[in-house]
Amino acid sequence: MELILKNIGVLATPVGNTAAKGKSQGEITLIEKAAVGIEAGRIAYIGLCERAPAADKTIDCEGRLVTPGLVDAHTHLVFGGWRQKEMARKLAGESYLDILRSGGGILDTVGKTREASEDELFEKGMGLLSDMLAHGSTTIECKSGYGLNLADELKQLRVAKKLGEHAQVELVRTFMGAHAIPPEYRCDREEYIDLVCDVMMPAVKAEGLAEFCDIFCETAVFTTKEASYILGKAVEHGLIPKAHVDEINPIGGAEMAASAGCLSAEHLIQASDEGIQALADNNVVACLLPGTSFHLGKDYARARDMILAGVAVAVCTDFNPGSNPNLNLQLPMYLACNRYRMNPAEVLTAVTLNGAAAIGRADQIGTLEVGKQADLVIWNSPDLDYIFYRYGNNLVNSVVKKGKVVAQNC
Amino acid sequence: MELILKNIGVLATPVGNTAAKGKSQGEITLIEKAAVGIEAGRIAYIGLCERAPAADKTIDCEGRLVTPGLVDAHTHLVFGGWRQKEMARKLAGESYLDILRSGGGILDTVGKTREASEDELFEKGMGLLSDMLAHGSTTIECKSGYGLNLADELKQLRVAKKLGEHAQVELVRTFMGAHAIPPEYRCDREEYIDLVCDVMMPAVKAEGLAEFCDIFCETAVFTTKEASYILGKAVEHGLIPKAHVDEINPIGGAEMAASAGCLSAEHLIQASDEGIQALADNNVVACLLPGTSFHLGKDYARARDMILAGVAVAVCTDFNPGSNPNLNLQLPMYLACNRYRMNPAEVLTAVTLNGAAAIGRADQIGTLEVGKQADLVIWNSPDLDYIFYRYGNNLVNSVVKKGKVVAQNC
Repeated sequence: MELILKNIGVLATPVGNTAAKGKSQGEITLIEKAAVGIEAGRIAYIGLCERAPAADKTIDCEGRLVTPGLVDAHTHLVFGGWRQKEMARKLAGESYLDILRSGGGILDTVGKTREASEDELFEKGMGLLSDMLAHGSTTIECKSGYGLNLADELKQLRVAKKLGEHAQVELVRTFMGAHAIPPEYRCDREEYIDLVCDVMMPAVKAEGLAEFCDIFCETAVFTTKEASYILGKAVEHGLIPKAHVDEINPIGGAEMAASAGCLSAEHLIQASDEGIQALADNNVVACLLPGTSFHLGKDYARARDMILAGVAVAVCTDFNPGSNPNLNLQLPMYLACNRYRMNPAEVLTAVTLNGAAAIGRADQIGTLEVGKQADLVIWNSPDLDYIFYRYGNNLVNSVVKKGKVVAQNC
Repeated sequence: MELILKNIGVLATPVGNTAAKGKSQGEITLIEKAAVGIEAGRIAYIGLCERAPAADKTIDCEGRLVTPGLVDAHTHLVFGGWRQKEMARKLAGESYLDILRSGGGILDTVGKTREASEDELFEKGMGLLSDMLAHGSTTIECKSGYGLNLADELKQLRVAKKLGEHAQVELVRTFMGAHAIPPEYRCDREEYIDLVCDVMMPAVKAEGLAEFCDIFCETAVFTTKEASYILGKAVEHGLIPKAHVDEINPIGGAEMAASAGCLSAEHLIQASDEGIQALADNNVVACLLPGTSFHLGKDYARARDMILAGVAVAVCTDFNPGSNPNLNLQLPMYLACNRYRMNPAEVLTAVTLNGAAAIGRADQIGTLEVGKQADLVIWNSPDLDYIFYRYGNNLVNSVVKKGKVVAQNC
């Protein structure tokens, strides 16, 4: 064996190669006094420490908790600028609409993303990925959607591709040209939709820049009918569909996502009972984003109802410069316990196996099982409950990606 | 000059040697392209970088924000055990009262604190202080109150004293024997009150173990009348009074704290209009604890009403193993903006000058002014707004305490 992690206090992991739905979301494996053996970047032994095989190298976990590496299946990682000034303006009494009218809000990010060079976006992204990795995220999904024209959507995705090649985190790319109607198409939405479907999608596919296609289906953004059309085109172009739905208003977005064959549906705060059932029936993973509810002071998604209905729930950061500038997945994990009322085992599954399922990688990552990729987090924690309780500071001790130690905190 | 911090992007600091009340809480000094000079652990120059004197050593702040070191004026730092198992029990449906009846809750912490040796508590405290320092807190108040008998209250305070001697953070000690009625005195509260006043207080004072005396004035804990009596005794014994008041029920605690001559009043979530006015009229600093409201999912204190009434507001963590296991003051700072609706300047004052005033040290720390102790935080941030916006990961670059770099984050 190349590497053994020995003296693991508790190893906690979901099991399986597909999303864990309903009751099974809370059914995880716990092994005390465990060891993990790694060979060629994959897990080759899981079991009691005392029976572990010999190895060339050993990491002594000193009784710590070990879990699979975290999968953050919903982020908007690549963007220009930050929007801290808007917070001060809001506290001084301005509304988001006031800010938007003066060129702020998402328009500010679109402008700064268009202005930024690939090198600038790359350098910024590398810093952010290093922080995310230090907080335990070993695989991260990343959406475009701040370019909103051909050149700048491709630019965002090219930066993401390059980041994936250079960072020690694995990146998964999603094309999201249908994130908003850009200002220059405000009076011509159909033309923008055609641009997204007939120009951007083929270009994205030709360059191999994305695996998934996401869309923001919402009042005043894209209707369910438009979303359905765009996602149909995505499938034609070989992109796997995803959709932001029912975040603000219950407009049947979850139902649309289910019938469009989405692998995952995002936000879902206002999803209807019928929509939730449609997700369950069609094996759509619900990517819930409690940090965004927290940051905006909005309602929380009905995670418990979803689990009860048999939906596989993932929990992600939604990291972006507007609605949630937090990149630490541990905080959404805490919120999933304390606001969604999910239990620690359910949340662990949500940020590992079900996150992996939301990006089509549940057969490779998301659990600690022999044959899977050796992505693990060693926590400064004696047990699983503790990491959902000691919120507010980074509890990661070290991070192993494909069998190599890639982050170590003091 | 011994040391110069040069190329400060923005230096942000309140000014003055007393708590900033009302409108003046938001009036801070901002200096762009600044430098700070340090001599013998004190600030000897503040001003433009281009006019800074020569120095033996230089730290290049590379355009970063610099503020005073943070003052966390309310913590329960020294305790035995952790209570992560209770979170899982609560998520499974048990109430806090169920947990308390089975020996959990504060009783669990009292038991584990009594069992722990001074060495164990010291070692644990050193680790926690190191984390707090890495998050920017350079001065920390620490209360006893998990011993609830003479030997174990003294033990907690002795540990805190030793921690202050060994850690690179400055510790300020508060005796809080009146934190709860211990189980063995449940039917004899007057006897316990006498023990606190007539046995513990003289012993604490004789050994020089505390500067302050705090009490938990609340329904089912200590009445306003009892609190008033106990704090009167504290003053007789030379301890400066503080009080936890109106956290759960509005029982006139703020009025009591004002008339008892408290330097600060804590929590204040349910404080009445009259109570708030009494705090303003008597220069009582309001130590608000938004992290506790957040963690428990409870109401937030009326910070804006307090500022409007002319109360000096401090913001602290309340770090403790039950109602708030978070030690990172940056999260309460974020909550003070996003839930209390205080602006960044007001919150900066709350965690520096007003925190210092709450522990009687506003003439020494809490602002960056010539002659004050050189406690500073260099932030991975270009401006003040940013540190209240990029919540969730530690934004501290490095920490200077009494002129020495005592923490550096990657």
